[in-house]
Amino acid sequence: MRLATLRNGTPDGQLVVVCAAAARYLPAGPALPNLLTAIENWGSAEATLAALSSELADGAGLPLDPAQLAAPLPRSWQWLDGSAFGTHGDLMQVAFNMPPIETDLPLMYQGMSDRFYGPTDPVPFADPAHGIDFEGEFGVIVDAVPMGTSARDAAAHIKLVVQINDWSLRTLAPIEMKTGFGWVQAKPACSMAPFAVPPAALGQGWHDNRVALDLVVDWNGAPFGHANGRAMDFSFAELVAHAARTRDLVAGTVIGSGTVSNPEYASVGSSCISERRAIEIIADGKPATAFMAIGDHVRMEARGADGSTPFGAIDQQVVQASLPAAS
Amino acid sequence: MRLATLRNGTPDGQLVVVCAAAARYLPAGPALPNLLTAIENWGSAEATLAALSSELADGAGLPLDPAQLAAPLPRSWQWLDGSAFGTHGDLMQVAFNMPPIETDLPLMYQGMSDRFYGPTDPVPFADPAHGIDFEGEFGVIVDAVPMGTSARDAAAHIKLVVQINDWSLRTLAPIEMKTGFGWVQAKPACSMAPFAVPPAALGQGWHDNRVALDLVVDWNGAPFGHANGRAMDFSFAELVAHAARTRDLVAGTVIGSGTVSNPEYASVGSSCISERRAIEIIADGKPATAFMAIGDHVRMEARGADGSTPFGAIDQQVVQASLPAAS
Repeated sequence: MRLATLRNGTPDGQLVVVCAAAARYLPAGPALPNLLTAIENWGSAEATLAALSSELADGAGLPLDPAQLAAPLPRSWQWLDGSAFGTHGDLMQVAFNMPPIETDLPLMYQGMSDRFYGPTDPVPFADPAHGIDFEGEFGVIVDAVPMGTSARDAAAHIKLVVQINDWSLRTLAPIEMKTGFGWVQAKPACSMAPFAVPPAALGQGWHDNRVALDLVVDWNGAPFGHANGRAMDFSFAELVAHAARTRDLVAGTVIGSGTVSNPEYASVGSSCISERRAIEIIADGKPATAFMAIGDHVRMEARGADGSTPFGAIDQQVVQASLPAAS
Repeated sequence: MRLATLRNGTPDGQLVVVCAAAARYLPAGPALPNLLTAIENWGSAEATLAALSSELADGAGLPLDPAQLAAPLPRSWQWLDGSAFGTHGDLMQVAFNMPPIETDLPLMYQGMSDRFYGPTDPVPFADPAHGIDFEGEFGVIVDAVPMGTSARDAAAHIKLVVQINDWSLRTLAPIEMKTGFGWVQAKPACSMAPFAVPPAALGQGWHDNRVALDLVVDWNGAPFGHANGRAMDFSFAELVAHAARTRDLVAGTVIGSGTVSNPEYASVGSSCISERRAIEIIADGKPATAFMAIGDHVRMEARGADGSTPFGAIDQQVVQASLPAAS
């Protein structure tokens, strides 16, 4: 089963089921107008969506226009982003020139969830001097998770998996990080790849509550990285349990992996520019790669060993935001 | 104009307008089913709500049952909490035994917004060993604020003012703060006092984009503090502009002041237990006051010099959450 959202003029869009080749779709129907409604009622929605998926496999469906695809979940009540790849953490300490973070717990912050950009939306930024960077991640969408749920029990609440670009502003990030309050200005809206899929649909690509797929990243058409998601220090189930320790998680909560990063970065590359800069600092004492410029493109697509691309591609351009004139 | 929300079995509740004495109400009507819808359409909603307020002043309305009051905004897409009272920051450094935060910018984190407890809801916590503390605050609700809006222009986007208890878990807070990622576990859902009011309705209580009212806090029936909200180092307009520097703010975004705190704490007391503990540490080298226990009550009510209480009272009991049995 692959789920997507078509633009229909509403903030939540229209939920559709997409065929394996992403060429045809069927509307999820009036009882499941959007993905947020479906995840709030997953117990009954799942069978409906699976039945539509079978119809698509039998050849039914309307032609899918990729240009009409929004984020599968265009907005949600909660976005909690982890940082579960140890290599990313190590390199970011170099990039930000900050001491190691001493904790045995997962790292996590709450970010902006009122808008997730669609996979081909142009992404507006206020000022390229803020250090515009992409961060390739995986994420999971849960149904309602009661406070105090264990990691073991959390796994059953993971209903869908998504691929995310967590846009970051690197000259603002360390300033906010040093306050201890986390990021507001450094973390504008994220983007999502077009398709959300249940963990089981990933086959071997879902292992130990991790996405065991390469995240292929191209920057302005040049290969940038293809790190694998299986290297998480904490599984998604552990991240969900961490988030739910002192709060009920509302249905539709998105939990992120943090930037996909592997110890073998010399051969697999990176999923964000800051990591490449850190690697340059380690090698040469200073970074050589600049952050993104207005007009730059980034493409991200997770790929299985069999060549499958379950989430489809994020393929976006950075644009200058039109800012209001001061009165 | 005073706005409130009655429980009606939906997550957003039913928007009503309440009379000056909070004894009668009128439904906002089918076009304005809840406050989130109203703030998304404030340009047209304001006149409708003002007309209902006039009818109430003329004696119309149904009897209001305070037990049916939810938070005026029971959930929203975004909650960004500042920390704009310098005295609070100074005392929290003592409480957490952490170095001063060096920044010229407002402090702000993104917190949980999918649920705001109503004013008399019992508030469940996973574990009293987490250091349960209240934090009395003021907040504003904005309509849509474009990215890059100046502080001067941000003031016009402040449509409503609310009173908030930002529940905090003090043994978890410094652990998360030291990571730089901000708080997830240490900041469960907040509570709101029953009434949201436009800034103009506060009269002299709204000054320089600050709430110039005493926040009267009682803990288990004993007076705890009555600090005044005018002492913010940054105004709400400045906090809104800070939040909007790199993102559009979605209509319904709630921006918090942080714990109300005054330099005259020796005479006015505090709005959270951690501050009292810090004052004890300064005086005696160690804290004497314990955090909240299961069964404790806290009451918070902002009060004008004329005795008016525009937001009504938060009056809540701390209860033990019933946690799921591990499988």
